[in-house]
Amino acid sequence: MAFSPLVDELVESLRCLPGVGQKTAQRMAFHLLERARSGGTRLSDALSNAMEGVRRCESCQNFSDTEVCGICENPARSNGTLCVVESPSDLLAIEQAGDYKGSYFVLMGHLSPIDGVGPEEIGIERLLRRVRSDAVTELILATNPTVEGEATAHYISDRLDGSEILITRLAHGIPVGGELGYVDGFTLTHAFRGRKPLLD
Amino acid sequence: MAFSPLVDELVESLRCLPGVGQKTAQRMAFHLLERARSGGTRLSDALSNAMEGVRRCESCQNFSDTEVCGICENPARSNGTLCVVESPSDLLAIEQAGDYKGSYFVLMGHLSPIDGVGPEEIGIERLLRRVRSDAVTELILATNPTVEGEATAHYISDRLDGSEILITRLAHGIPVGGELGYVDGFTLTHAFRGRKPLLD
Repeated sequence: MAFSPLVDELVESLRCLPGVGQKTAQRMAFHLLERARSGGTRLSDALSNAMEGVRRCESCQNFSDTEVCGICENPARSNGTLCVVESPSDLLAIEQAGDYKGSYFVLMGHLSPIDGVGPEEIGIERLLRRVRSDAVTELILATNPTVEGEATAHYISDRLDGSEILITRLAHGIPVGGELGYVDGFTLTHAFRGRKPLLD
Repeated sequence: MAFSPLVDELVESLRCLPGVGQKTAQRMAFHLLERARSGGTRLSDALSNAMEGVRRCESCQNFSDTEVCGICENPARSNGTLCVVESPSDLLAIEQAGDYKGSYFVLMGHLSPIDGVGPEEIGIERLLRRVRSDAVTELILATNPTVEGEATAHYISDRLDGSEILITRLAHGIPVGGELGYVDGFTLTHAFRGRKPLLD
């Protein structure tokens, strides 16, 4: 762009956002400059505060403003049940469902040797230490039902082989409100195998 | 989100970007925190600099870091030809095409009485003053071929009625590389009416 180095730099910087290319970055920059300068200033402050202030919780590895996050510090959350998720957005989805009252451990990824992500990078040792120190009785492996997520779940379960802990995995089946005709074959097979008596 | 007020505020602030809802804002925030902290800091600085430093060029109304923008100040650009566009991104598209060497006037919108946008809001008086003071010989009305864009072009041309200035509008026709079968009827009609001898 010839007319303004400040606008150029803004467009270029916006491209670090995921899914934002040149055209979208331009549209965002012009929108902020034309119609949302106060929003732009607020975003600038929020970004600088978050980039400086947000760290990992010492206990569960989730993003946190403090050394230990709000969920880990909450005495009402049972430490006996620990749910392992891949990312903060997975944790958020479970929290928004509102039913689970145990604590979490956020891997911030999954095992993926091809990308150089091994057990060390996703904090498996820290997870195992926590499982022992918190006297966890049930470990829910809520990694995603993808190849990498399944491999990560199996790796963790192998590492805990021989312990007394109950290790569980989330149920597969038909989504609530889903229509049978649109459900894929693997999910249907899981749903059939996991069928339950009506009066359970 | 329960776990971090700083992350909450970042997600909320990202929603001021056009086309960004709750889920996308979350994805962006987590991406920046996990993988692109330096990009986030750079974006924060670029935003704050741009929101404070970018103003309108006194001469053409385009975004500029200085009182008069680079294009208006450039002595190599002919002041005799003035191209009126709706937005900085239109100007950018014309600049990237690289053929036009005159100067610009950016309306930053179009006439739209229903939204309270009249001639005053898009700087028509400033445009007319510039047309007179710069001794413009040709005024290219490159507003968009939409109802509002056409109305704006007609309004400007009416205001200059009786002057000696040549007022032109960009040609309609088949896009270069376009296929006839996919071109709409209005465009085809324009292309037929504007047909030219092969050896022109």
